[in-house]
Amino acid sequence: MQRILNLETKKHIGKKVKISGWVNSRRDHGGIVFFDLRDRTGILQVVCQEKLAQGIKDEYVLEIEGEMQKRPIKMVNSELETGEVELKAENIKILAQAETLPFDLRDLNVSLPTLLDFRPLTLRNKKIQAIFKIQGQMISSFRKSLKESGFTEFESPLIVPSNAEGGAEVFHIDYYGRHAYLSQSPQLYKQILVGVFERVFTVARVFRAEPSITTRHLSEYISLDAEMGFIESWEDVMDVCENVIKDIFSDLKKSCSKELRIHETSLPETRKIPRIKMREAQEIIFQRTKRDNRKEPDLEPEDEKEICSWAKEKHGSELIFITHYPAKKRPFYTYPDPQDPDYTLSFDLLFRGLEIVTGGQRINQEEELLKNIKKWKNQPKDFQFYLQAFKYGLPTEGGFAMGLERIIKQILGLGNVREASLFPRDMERIDQRLSLLQPKSKKTKLKKKK
Amino acid sequence: MQRILNLETKKHIGKKVKISGWVNSRRDHGGIVFFDLRDRTGILQVVCQEKLAQGIKDEYVLEIEGEMQKRPIKMVNSELETGEVELKAENIKILAQAETLPFDLRDLNVSLPTLLDFRPLTLRNKKIQAIFKIQGQMISSFRKSLKESGFTEFESPLIVPSNAEGGAEVFHIDYYGRHAYLSQSPQLYKQILVGVFERVFTVARVFRAEPSITTRHLSEYISLDAEMGFIESWEDVMDVCENVIKDIFSDLKKSCSKELRIHETSLPETRKIPRIKMREAQEIIFQRTKRDNRKEPDLEPEDEKEICSWAKEKHGSELIFITHYPAKKRPFYTYPDPQDPDYTLSFDLLFRGLEIVTGGQRINQEEELLKNIKKWKNQPKDFQFYLQAFKYGLPTEGGFAMGLERIIKQILGLGNVREASLFPRDMERIDQRLSLLQPKSKKTKLKKKK
Repeated sequence: MQRILNLETKKHIGKKVKISGWVNSRRDHGGIVFFDLRDRTGILQVVCQEKLAQGIKDEYVLEIEGEMQKRPIKMVNSELETGEVELKAENIKILAQAETLPFDLRDLNVSLPTLLDFRPLTLRNKKIQAIFKIQGQMISSFRKSLKESGFTEFESPLIVPSNAEGGAEVFHIDYYGRHAYLSQSPQLYKQILVGVFERVFTVARVFRAEPSITTRHLSEYISLDAEMGFIESWEDVMDVCENVIKDIFSDLKKSCSKELRIHETSLPETRKIPRIKMREAQEIIFQRTKRDNRKEPDLEPEDEKEICSWAKEKHGSELIFITHYPAKKRPFYTYPDPQDPDYTLSFDLLFRGLEIVTGGQRINQEEELLKNIKKWKNQPKDFQFYLQAFKYGLPTEGGFAMGLERIIKQILGLGNVREASLFPRDMERIDQRLSLLQPKSKKTKLKKKK
Repeated sequence: MQRILNLETKKHIGKKVKISGWVNSRRDHGGIVFFDLRDRTGILQVVCQEKLAQGIKDEYVLEIEGEMQKRPIKMVNSELETGEVELKAENIKILAQAETLPFDLRDLNVSLPTLLDFRPLTLRNKKIQAIFKIQGQMISSFRKSLKESGFTEFESPLIVPSNAEGGAEVFHIDYYGRHAYLSQSPQLYKQILVGVFERVFTVARVFRAEPSITTRHLSEYISLDAEMGFIESWEDVMDVCENVIKDIFSDLKKSCSKELRIHETSLPETRKIPRIKMREAQEIIFQRTKRDNRKEPDLEPEDEKEICSWAKEKHGSELIFITHYPAKKRPFYTYPDPQDPDYTLSFDLLFRGLEIVTGGQRINQEEELLKNIKKWKNQPKDFQFYLQAFKYGLPTEGGFAMGLERIIKQILGLGNVREASLFPRDMERIDQRLSLLQPKSKKTKLKKKK
């Protein structure tokens, strides 16, 4: 007999079927046992005689044959997607046993370290699974939106030859006895590929050796990156970014309404996103709070929250673009504003108090780039490969990068960005807590290959 | 005026338009200049007075306004996708200049090192672009095929805590003063996620510190990985693998016929793929060649070629599954054949003489895994996280992994797998030749973070 999925059970009322899945819960009632059986499509109630269910506990993997029946009373407000039917089990085969669980998996109430220590188990919880269904949908929507706009997807390399963009937060690799690094961004490669495909995007992995533990940083995360040539204005880049965000939100509303409901959240209306200059934002923040950060080169976390409150009150928008960041706070390739060259044609997108996207126009003239590479105290020889793209003709262009886990954190109101990463890495953890695996030592030397 | 793309030009005959792109070539004929102008959709002929085209060379980026005209004679066998029309230029704006090219980019005839040294430029060649259009289509088809079969896509982590599967070919990372490694496979994570989503796949990046230069190895490559629970037999895994390969080939025929034609190749008929045991394959090879490798634990490269020739002659198939590899040559999690436990329920898929897929059923019982982890001389403590998946109930399962660049190499008949990687990494190269960037030293020490 072929296995059927829980979602298909309604079509089989009155018939013999076979189903398989995990025991989500077990309830004993005077000689009768009820299981909630979970498979990838939902949860089904199974009922059987006690003797058939001997020794079966939560998370056992079962294969059950029996008759599909209409339930006497439709369960309302039930966890079951298949509340109208139940399976009367006639034969139960145990495919795999499970140890007694360390906590209640259905009503999960554990600390973040425990949640992550037991990730292979806690990912089975419905509310946590919902996070990653949303993640998957967002990546699909990002791809779909950009492909429809003529973008080509590419796979960016992750081992890079130099710490090209500077900054201490880079991981070193022993590369056949030489130095190499883990990519901090697909930036240089996506610009190179504007010379090939004009419009490109990538679902990139990026690595940051963040030296501290915060609720919004990961050592390895997913960056949704896009870059486009032949722009008429730097605002074309913002327009594409706004369009992508709207497509993602609109797809989530359609495809993940159940998952959003489980997290008791909803998405913002997709109205026009307001755009203001950083200096204007600072003035507004000063007027509202009397905190004077007007001379600062960037927005502090509390400033980002404040300007988001303003956007909500003034424009009814949970999203806001902040533009024209100072040149010295942006990377060397950022295009200066011709009207005011200390500032740049760049933007951040803030959502519910947090920066989720960074973008802007790039310098596309080799000499200008070389000048800035030196000004930023980088080595021109590290950029020879990259500069070829400009030496042989690159159009005006720009792009943006979205931090996937951060957007999910903001959508679902998660307390920590780690919850939005399947297997989060930080300075204390790679799967397990590192202190459990190896002693830390200032003298640690990486073993060399012979 | 809004820019139109080359592919849209036919709709604009007799109208004023603006187009933009790169000079693919320039031809001067007595005061008249012809350009082939390349954009992301194709190549268009532009004609203008000499004075308008002063100083313009190959790879210059232009924005041209003019009138779209029907060409007097339709060009047959032309490189131009838009052979029926041409643009009579009235105004040419240079968006970016280009240096004189180091070689002819249209008729590219350079050594592999030069091809890669100038990757940002050589990727603009039509035949090379075609390789990456095919790559993109293959990844899309892999995703589509598996999503239609109920698989969930996930993003596998790339920094891993231990060299879990053993083997010397692993890259070491300095992880906040501790040891960590670059992932050699998403294997452990995809098995963990069978416990969550039943059926999962990932477009993974994998890293191998290959200590030698061959035509079929890369230090960083793309692995198309899938894993599925609730299998009835290990052959279910082969069936899904066969289905995915057929979907990929069939989509390529539909969507990339132009690119396949440029490479003067075609795809195999998607007939039933023959399946034979490794021992049978060795016997056949011995009968055909009198080379006696019948006692060997694996197939050598020349054996793979020979058995592919046999499959072509005997079954008319360019693909063949070889099954039942010896346990000692497969990883610790490979399921032993109950009939003959020195062999395993595993398979390789060979295509035109090269292994392109590896897969099989996995052990899903914690005690059996633990026994093998010890037998394979691994540390059980390195597997605590992974083993949770089995401790709390994991169904019978299996999966497979496809080497993307290898499949592309075989489809297009490329001489070297590096040609199928956008930015290939090997022991001598990360973008540029490493010898140009830093001297090699046995004493190289990775710098520690402070």
